[in-house]
Amino acid sequence: MTTAALASMRADLAGFRAAIADVPVIDEPALVRLRSRDFFWFSPILKAQLQRKSADLVVCPRDEADVVVVARAAARHRVPVTVRGAGTGNYGQAVPLEGGIVLDMTDMTAIEWQRPGVVRVQPGKKLVDLDAETRPAGWEQRMHPSTKRTATIGGFVAGGSGGVGSVTYGGLREPGNILGARVVTLEPEPRVLELRDDAAQKVCHAYGTNGIITAVEMATAPALAWIDVLVAFDELSQAVACGHAVALADGIVKKLLTPVAWPVPTYFKGLEQACPEGRSLLIAMVAEPSLAPFEAMVAARGGSVTYRAPTEEGPGARPLYELTWNHTTLHALKVDKEITYLQSLFPVDRTLAAIAEIEALLGDQAMGHYEFVRYNGVVAAVGLPLVRFTTEERLRAMIALHQQHGVMIADPHVTSLEGGSGHMRADIDQLGFKHEVDPLGLMNPGKMTSFTARG
Amino acid sequence: MTTAALASMRADLAGFRAAIADVPVIDEPALVRLRSRDFFWFSPILKAQLQRKSADLVVCPRDEADVVVVARAAARHRVPVTVRGAGTGNYGQAVPLEGGIVLDMTDMTAIEWQRPGVVRVQPGKKLVDLDAETRPAGWEQRMHPSTKRTATIGGFVAGGSGGVGSVTYGGLREPGNILGARVVTLEPEPRVLELRDDAAQKVCHAYGTNGIITAVEMATAPALAWIDVLVAFDELSQAVACGHAVALADGIVKKLLTPVAWPVPTYFKGLEQACPEGRSLLIAMVAEPSLAPFEAMVAARGGSVTYRAPTEEGPGARPLYELTWNHTTLHALKVDKEITYLQSLFPVDRTLAAIAEIEALLGDQAMGHYEFVRYNGVVAAVGLPLVRFTTEERLRAMIALHQQHGVMIADPHVTSLEGGSGHMRADIDQLGFKHEVDPLGLMNPGKMTSFTARG
Repeated sequence: MTTAALASMRADLAGFRAAIADVPVIDEPALVRLRSRDFFWFSPILKAQLQRKSADLVVCPRDEADVVVVARAAARHRVPVTVRGAGTGNYGQAVPLEGGIVLDMTDMTAIEWQRPGVVRVQPGKKLVDLDAETRPAGWEQRMHPSTKRTATIGGFVAGGSGGVGSVTYGGLREPGNILGARVVTLEPEPRVLELRDDAAQKVCHAYGTNGIITAVEMATAPALAWIDVLVAFDELSQAVACGHAVALADGIVKKLLTPVAWPVPTYFKGLEQACPEGRSLLIAMVAEPSLAPFEAMVAARGGSVTYRAPTEEGPGARPLYELTWNHTTLHALKVDKEITYLQSLFPVDRTLAAIAEIEALLGDQAMGHYEFVRYNGVVAAVGLPLVRFTTEERLRAMIALHQQHGVMIADPHVTSLEGGSGHMRADIDQLGFKHEVDPLGLMNPGKMTSFTARG
Repeated sequence: MTTAALASMRADLAGFRAAIADVPVIDEPALVRLRSRDFFWFSPILKAQLQRKSADLVVCPRDEADVVVVARAAARHRVPVTVRGAGTGNYGQAVPLEGGIVLDMTDMTAIEWQRPGVVRVQPGKKLVDLDAETRPAGWEQRMHPSTKRTATIGGFVAGGSGGVGSVTYGGLREPGNILGARVVTLEPEPRVLELRDDAAQKVCHAYGTNGIITAVEMATAPALAWIDVLVAFDELSQAVACGHAVALADGIVKKLLTPVAWPVPTYFKGLEQACPEGRSLLIAMVAEPSLAPFEAMVAARGGSVTYRAPTEEGPGARPLYELTWNHTTLHALKVDKEITYLQSLFPVDRTLAAIAEIEALLGDQAMGHYEFVRYNGVVAAVGLPLVRFTTEERLRAMIALHQQHGVMIADPHVTSLEGGSGHMRADIDQLGFKHEVDPLGLMNPGKMTSFTARG
């Protein structure tokens, strides 16, 4: 059968299910619906579009052999496949747009091997468990999302772009962070491809549309003793300027620099004592030996340290990174259901000025939230402002306002990979690669919209 | 006696010598002359000015108590004091301009303590020995000069500004690198000052004119497995562009990125096989897990790896860092006595363009040698071009040419601290601090020219 003929067939779920034999499945409708969701509801727009989307079946491979069986059956029976880790994304990465199966990778958790500076692991491993297993030898992940305690490494690589740690190591996709990946192609005769260096980047941030990842090889960082610090400032601009200065201070080893404007701290329940009324915060993670020089920098810039404790990640602990990145939005949503957010990237040659402009323009319509990162080797600020949702038009106007002032927006209110990127198209490498690994376009069809299966 | 009265006294060396009792001294004239020299002869101008300078006596304190005895005696008997480590500097930092004593710190080598990320050590410890003692616990110095195998930590802190490792951690003086220092003041009643954070920076790069350092507390880096790599390119511009790209790649962990133009590699004896005729080189130190992505970047930019081996520092070994920074100049001088060099800092917003301009302007008069560093949080290129010395006027014209094109020069052909800095004045903190720690101006008088003792 030609690719075109296969592509024109209708999904045959019964045939698929018979073909995968003993690979574990979940077909209880409530559970299937649950595992077809992620945190897309952070966006009222995605919420309306995605809340009724569901897979028909969840499949839970135990190993790569199971993945090959599933890929073969899906290709032959034309069943759409949406790959999922823990479903902690908030762009609908793990939501099947056209039904079919959700391929739940959370049973594939083995570390294949580790050596100094590198770990190779199956995709379903939780990030917090991965660190727990590499720390005894002195290593940890270079970066992780704020959902480290629930998210999987495969989900992070496939659906993320960076996070806590990016202020030192840049984005996930910068050379040297992801060293390799193994993927199973979605074809009638699936192949297992070993990707290295540049080639391995093609699976990163492709929202699971570029082959089924069965292993990732990650460069690790020396594990350090991290200290969570909260610093209060009279003005947001001081918190931003201080965060920027520390981001530029290469002698201060840090993982997180997050300025947030008052009243964002009112959403941080249980930390009231460390969040003085009316003051903006800088949330930071600093390596223990850098704490004293960090505090000297902070004091010189008008900040007062209100909280300082080693980062703890065990059950019941509350690492400060769970106040940052998209967790900030989550805390606000718990209090106020009307809140949503934007994602922006400020121009690196005038970061502080551009932030001041946007703050002035948005006024009370947005609550400032920034994350300092390195981006292509340069310190940059990402904005994740909290906004009260009224209408989609109003949200689009705010986005336009950013763009008119030279601030790039990565729109978190669209379902496609392309719409969410700053470039409005899939990376050319990703798109070309998709023809190799998913020629029938069965991996969450509709997600990579610029892809069309070849005849 | 008032400070002014003390300052007007003549040096009383005999009185000094009697007062220091059993503190070890060297008075054999040939040895005293030898220990009054450093590598100032890299500069033909400094060579003419400094080659007849010498101390009258070398004093070798065994511990801080000895240092206090010497400081008291020097102040009371008005004897100039020039502090010296291993004398590996090449700006005449350790050359006494007005005689007196050289205070040779190389017998003070104890590590006071170490803990994860920090080591506190006496100033005479050789950098290579310091790393050897912290590596078993997993730590190493964040940066070191190319003279690591002979230089001392105290000499580096007092006379250096950065080096191998600065491409990651910035300059020595950036916050978080030097955490503390203890200094003995040069007064009739010496005090022992503990300096922390910002205050500790006042002893850095002050050429030993700001108190006698008896301990430094250095932030350390996780010790990694480093690989020495040589990469050959058809054109210098490719080596420079590749080095710049790797410097900006935050996922590639590195310590050294040094592009050198052909024919500089002809000075690298014993490495002929790795230095193909007519080709420029990028000399690099890369962490082992970053080697594959580094080589992928290099290959994509037209480079061919000609040498690759773990960095070895034992006797008989030849770490590649001994081809870089001012060692490059040393190798050239061994072959051609007419060679000298300049030191420049390129504008960060147009690094590659400015390098291309200077290369075109200097043509055959200079051999390109660059070092990538981080400087105030931004990737920057330092230039250390090799030039054939003809006249001082010609050298000054080359310096002016750089400055006219927006390239800053730190002149290595002047004896004063101020002349060698880009700012032509002592840091205001350093100058103010000198009044506290050396009110009589006895620490290598003439070195910090903007200082005048108060009456």
